[in-house]
Amino acid sequence: MPKIKSAINVLLQEAEELCIGSSVVELDRVPTALEFCREFYGKNQPVVIRKAVSWPAIGKWTPEYLIKALNDKIVDVAITPNGYADGLAVQDGKEYFVLPMETKMKLSQVINCLDDPTGAVYYIQKQNSNLSQDLPELAKDLRISDLDFAQQSFNKPPDAVNFWLGDERAVTSMHKDPYENLYCVVSGHKDFILIPPHQLSCVPRSLYPTGVYRTAANGQFYIEPFRDEDGCEQLTEWVSIDPIAPDLARFPEYSRARPLHVRVNAGDILYLPNYWFHHVRQSHKCIAVNFWYDLDYDSRYCYFRMLEELTSKTS
Amino acid sequence: MPKIKSAINVLLQEAEELCIGSSVVELDRVPTALEFCREFYGKNQPVVIRKAVSWPAIGKWTPEYLIKALNDKIVDVAITPNGYADGLAVQDGKEYFVLPMETKMKLSQVINCLDDPTGAVYYIQKQNSNLSQDLPELAKDLRISDLDFAQQSFNKPPDAVNFWLGDERAVTSMHKDPYENLYCVVSGHKDFILIPPHQLSCVPRSLYPTGVYRTAANGQFYIEPFRDEDGCEQLTEWVSIDPIAPDLARFPEYSRARPLHVRVNAGDILYLPNYWFHHVRQSHKCIAVNFWYDLDYDSRYCYFRMLEELTSKTS
Ligand SMILES: O=C(O)CCC(=O)C(=O)O
Ligand SMILES: O=C(O)CCC(=O)C(=O)O
Repeated sequence: MPKIKSAINVLLQEAEELCIGSSVVELDRVPTALEFCREFYGKNQPVVIRKAVSWPAIGKWTPEYLIKALNDKIVDVAITPNGYADGLAVQDGKEYFVLPMETKMKLSQVINCLDDPTGAVYYIQKQNSNLSQDLPELAKDLRISDLDFAQQSFNKPPDAVNFWLGDERAVTSMHKDPYENLYCVVSGHKDFILIPPHQLSCVPRSLYPTGVYRTAANGQFYIEPFRDEDGCEQLTEWVSIDPIAPDLARFPEYSRARPLHVRVNAGDILYLPNYWFHHVRQSHKCIAVNFWYDLDYDSRYCYFRMLEELTSKTS
Repeated sequence: MPKIKSAINVLLQEAEELCIGSSVVELDRVPTALEFCREFYGKNQPVVIRKAVSWPAIGKWTPEYLIKALNDKIVDVAITPNGYADGLAVQDGKEYFVLPMETKMKLSQVINCLDDPTGAVYYIQKQNSNLSQDLPELAKDLRISDLDFAQQSFNKPPDAVNFWLGDERAVTSMHKDPYENLYCVVSGHKDFILIPPHQLSCVPRSLYPTGVYRTAANGQFYIEPFRDEDGCEQLTEWVSIDPIAPDLARFPEYSRARPLHVRVNAGDILYLPNYWFHHVRQSHKCIAVNFWYDLDYDSRYCYFRMLEELTSKTS
């Protein structure tokens, strides 16, 4: 397919020459709504705004404070042997896309587990609007109006407000979401690796049999594959590459990717535009809140869908 | 190339289902800068704003007023036998892309010619910022601040301000420009046919030998082909289709195009986003001013370049 190759080459080269998607701009003040719309939202360009929020939560939220404020409430936790909830893992020589074991625990128990760096990896990461739904007690420590500069571009309230607290061994593997994302770190820091959507051809993906972590009677983790009624494996498309240690021999296309690295500190906001790939690590007991907004479809999205079709292995 | 076909199909279908590029929104009030940025500029979506300008020029500019205000100045005029400056024409069975005969005349002479509907077609249409460069006397009748709502998105002054006055037989054939365009009609009306950039595959284009109109001693027009030093024809890529009478037998791909029609009246502004195809007709002696702003390159532009490569006949 020399024509597809050359077309994708034009896309990557033009973007590289014009420096599209080649940096995460850092601002040390909150932009006006118009600036944000013009430079970032409208161009699908990420930006990190340093010290953007002055919420009561900043400085106040510690594991101990949260236990008290939430009256040691029961929370949803993801547990994995290795820190990878929603990630790839091998069992009996076969690679799976694995969901975490999900359980409910008292917050103080989760914190206790975080204090044991040798056991399983615990991560409060339920992306179902767990903050506004399950932890409304915390809302008073936020000031959503601090997000007005961006929300005026999205022009709608957030679809989900998520609360994150976890182990430094917890890693969110490379993926993309159909959302505009405002990611606010409250305590500690998060390290993002970002890849722009137009570099889709550089990001190897594959269909993996899907499973979920379970523990055996002896406490050992194993992967239980999902099967449908006919006993067939369920398949999930996932990114094959680990951007921390990319296997370029296996995935040579990744050498053309231009991943961006950015550390988001307490008080900072990262605007992560729709369909940007992201991989996330964190400091131990990092606390964060993020806001997902439904995206507005435009021709850029349609072009991205075309690129998906061009780079798909099937058909 | 079933894969290229299916990818382009995904692009067209997604856009159609999501109604991307499927309408020219009409506003009856000037939007705020943020609204314009969010809904139109940032999404590469056209909009026509009714009665958007309240310039002194509106109502004041008539051919007679212009002659007086400009002291019957000499102006650049494009002359063609058929109204098509920068368009396709056939000579001796061969199709050319033809530039107009360009000449300088007193404005009153141009107006006289416009009063003769049987002769050649005259059009003041030099797109070299003729208003700010050559006709500065007219600037006092405009109020550029009326364009602030949009200029705050472009975030720069216009690269060119063009003045248009011509015959109702003058037609600007289908083409696209690498500019953000604010098109303001001062007197009369203009009829635009627009096609969004993502429909590139539906717009047949070809390379044509290029020439310019000349007149013979007897006054007859003929096309003089351009040749380079080696006597070779110069080629120009141009749109093959006439959207007024599309030849679908010759260009079946055009049946998938979804051209939009909009009439822009005196006092209205059309925002024509970068790379939208446009075809323009006008009322007799229509007077207009348009503002071209250099575009800001973004990933949408890079995707468009990819689409150009995918749909190119060469390579
Ligand atoms: O913080 C994390 O671990 C992942 C965040 C993420 O993937 C998201 O906000 O979409
Ligand atoms: O008014 C016209 O005839 C053509 C306008 C045009 O092509 C433009 O403004 O780019």
